[in-house]
Amino acid sequence: MTNKISIHEEQREINAKGEFQRQKNRFDTPFGENAGELPVESGRYRLLWAEICPWAHRAVIVRELLGLKDVISLGTASPVRTEHGWEFSLDENGVDPVLNIRYLPEIYAQTDEEYTGRATVPTVVDVQTKKVVNNDYFRLTNYLEVAFQKFHKKNAPDLYPRHLRKEIDAFNEILFHDVNNGVYKAGFARSQEAYEKAYDTLFERLDELEERLGSSRYLFGDEITDSDIRLYVTLVRFDAAYYSVFRVNRNRLIDFPNLWNYAKDLYQTKGFGNTTNFDAIKKGYQLGNVSSNPFNILAKGPRVENWLEPHNREKLTKEV
Amino acid sequence: MTNKISIHEEQREINAKGEFQRQKNRFDTPFGENAGELPVESGRYRLLWAEICPWAHRAVIVRELLGLKDVISLGTASPVRTEHGWEFSLDENGVDPVLNIRYLPEIYAQTDEEYTGRATVPTVVDVQTKKVVNNDYFRLTNYLEVAFQKFHKKNAPDLYPRHLRKEIDAFNEILFHDVNNGVYKAGFARSQEAYEKAYDTLFERLDELEERLGSSRYLFGDEITDSDIRLYVTLVRFDAAYYSVFRVNRNRLIDFPNLWNYAKDLYQTKGFGNTTNFDAIKKGYQLGNVSSNPFNILAKGPRVENWLEPHNREKLTKEV
Repeated sequence: MTNKISIHEEQREINAKGEFQRQKNRFDTPFGENAGELPVESGRYRLLWAEICPWAHRAVIVRELLGLKDVISLGTASPVRTEHGWEFSLDENGVDPVLNIRYLPEIYAQTDEEYTGRATVPTVVDVQTKKVVNNDYFRLTNYLEVAFQKFHKKNAPDLYPRHLRKEIDAFNEILFHDVNNGVYKAGFARSQEAYEKAYDTLFERLDELEERLGSSRYLFGDEITDSDIRLYVTLVRFDAAYYSVFRVNRNRLIDFPNLWNYAKDLYQTKGFGNTTNFDAIKKGYQLGNVSSNPFNILAKGPRVENWLEPHNREKLTKEV
Repeated sequence: MTNKISIHEEQREINAKGEFQRQKNRFDTPFGENAGELPVESGRYRLLWAEICPWAHRAVIVRELLGLKDVISLGTASPVRTEHGWEFSLDENGVDPVLNIRYLPEIYAQTDEEYTGRATVPTVVDVQTKKVVNNDYFRLTNYLEVAFQKFHKKNAPDLYPRHLRKEIDAFNEILFHDVNNGVYKAGFARSQEAYEKAYDTLFERLDELEERLGSSRYLFGDEITDSDIRLYVTLVRFDAAYYSVFRVNRNRLIDFPNLWNYAKDLYQTKGFGNTTNFDAIKKGYQLGNVSSNPFNILAKGPRVENWLEPHNREKLTKEV
C-alpha cells in the first residue's frame, strides 16, 4: 500500500483555485518528411502504453484500425502506476523486452537528464537511439493517420479525411477540455467549486453529444473518424471508473440511450473492444490511488457483459 | 478536514480477516409494563437521530406512521459526524434544546462514565433523568409498534401484526445481516475477500427480494410492515451513497425494476419521503470520511427527482 502514489496527488498540476491543470507535453516534435521532423519509418518506433490510460488507448486503437501493428511495436505497462511511475511488470522479469527498462521514467531520464515532469503514456521511443521522441498524446493519432499513411493497410479507413479536418480539429479541442480531460478535472479537483464547474461542463457536453448521436451513427456521419476514437476512450471508462472514482455521477453512460448504443457499436468494432481491458481500467483507477482507497479494495462491479448486447445503430447509416 | 474522523476507521470493529463487526448495543432494556422494563409514558423520552443514519431513520419513520410525534420528541444531529461524535450543530447555538448537549457522547458519559463504545443513533434518552435508556436500533421499532400501542393514532397501521411476527422476525434477521448491515460490511471491509463476501451476499439477497416484490406490493402482502421500513432505509441510500462509497456497484437500485418501483412507492407514502433527506445522506456518507475523500468533495449526482415518478405498484394490491 505504501509503495504506491496517488494518481490524484500531482500537487504541481493543481492551481490556486484547486483546479487540475494537466502538464504540457515535453516531446512534441511532429512526424513527417520535413527537416527537423521525426522520420516516418517502419520498425523504428515503439509505442509505450498502459491499458488504463485513455490518452494512450487512442493511439493503440488507431494503430489497429490502420494496420500499423507491424510498423510500430507496442510495449504495455501495468495499469496500476507505482511510486516509481509506470512499470513493465507484465513483461517477463518485469522489463520491457526491447528497451530493457523496468519503469517508464528511465527512458525519459536517458533522453533528458533534466526532465522533471511526469513520464506519461503514450510515449513513442526511437528504438535505434533508445530515446523518447514524442509523447504528444493530443496529436499522436493524427500523425498515425497522416504521416504514416504510406504504411496503412489496404482499404484502411480514412479516420482524418482532408475535407473534415478543420471540423474534426475544432471538435477535438472541445472534446479534450470538456470531456476527455473534463473527467480528470472533476476527479482531481481540490475545491468543490472546481469540481462542480468540471461536472456541469462535462454533462452539458454529454447531453449535446447524446442529441447529436440520435441522428448520426458516428460523430461525423456514416464513417468512424478520429473524433469517435477520442470520445470512445472516455465513454468506455465512464461507468467502470469515472462515475464513482471521479464523482461524475449525474448518471451513467448506460443511462444515455444514444451514447450507450454508440459506445457499444464501437466496442463491437475490431480495434476497439479487443484493445479495451475493463479489468485493467478498474485496477488502474481504483488501486492506483492510495489516499482514496486505503485498503486497496477493488470494486467488483459494474457488470460489463452488456457491452456485447445489440446496439441497433446500423439503422442510422445513410448509405446502405 | 483534519477535525473529522472517518466512519470507516473504527479499528476495533474490524476482525482479523478484515471484516467489519458492528459493536453490540450497550443499552438494551426493553420498553414495557413489566418490572425492570422502561415505563411506557408520553412526553418522557427523546429520540436522537441523524438523517444520514438508516438505523435511526427506521425509528423516525415508525414514529411518524404510528402518530407518535407528540409522544416521543425528536432531536436531530448533523449528518456529518465529527471527531467528537454526532453533533447538534443544526440546533440554535449548536446545542440540543432539551438535553443541552453539543455532542452525543456527552449524554452517554452522563449515563455511564465507563462507556467506551461509539455513541450511536438512534439513542433514546429519558428526559427526566437525562440519561440514555435505550440504543437498541434493532428492536426499537418493535417497541414503538407494540409497547407504545396505547399511544398510536386512530387507524394507525399495524406494522407488526401478531400473526406475522415470527415470519417478520426471521426475515428481519436475514435482512440485517445481508442487506442493512451488508452494505456496511462491504464498505468497511479491509480485505478484498471480506468485501467480496459481503458484496456477493448482498446482491444475492437483493435478487431474491426483486423476485419477491414482483408479485407482492409490500414484503408481506398488501400492507406495510416493519420489514418494509427496514428494507426502505437501505434502498433509499443505495444509489446516493452505497453504490459508490461502499463499492456495492454490481448495479444500482434503479436497475432493479421491482425494487425501484417498490422504493418509490414507499418514498411517496407519508412518513417515508418526508423523513428522507438525500442531501444529508450524501453529506453524511461522503464528507464523514476523510480518508477516502481528502479534499472533502461532495458528489453532485445522482439525480433524485426520479423518486417522484410513477411506481405503478397499486396493481399488485390484492384487496381492492
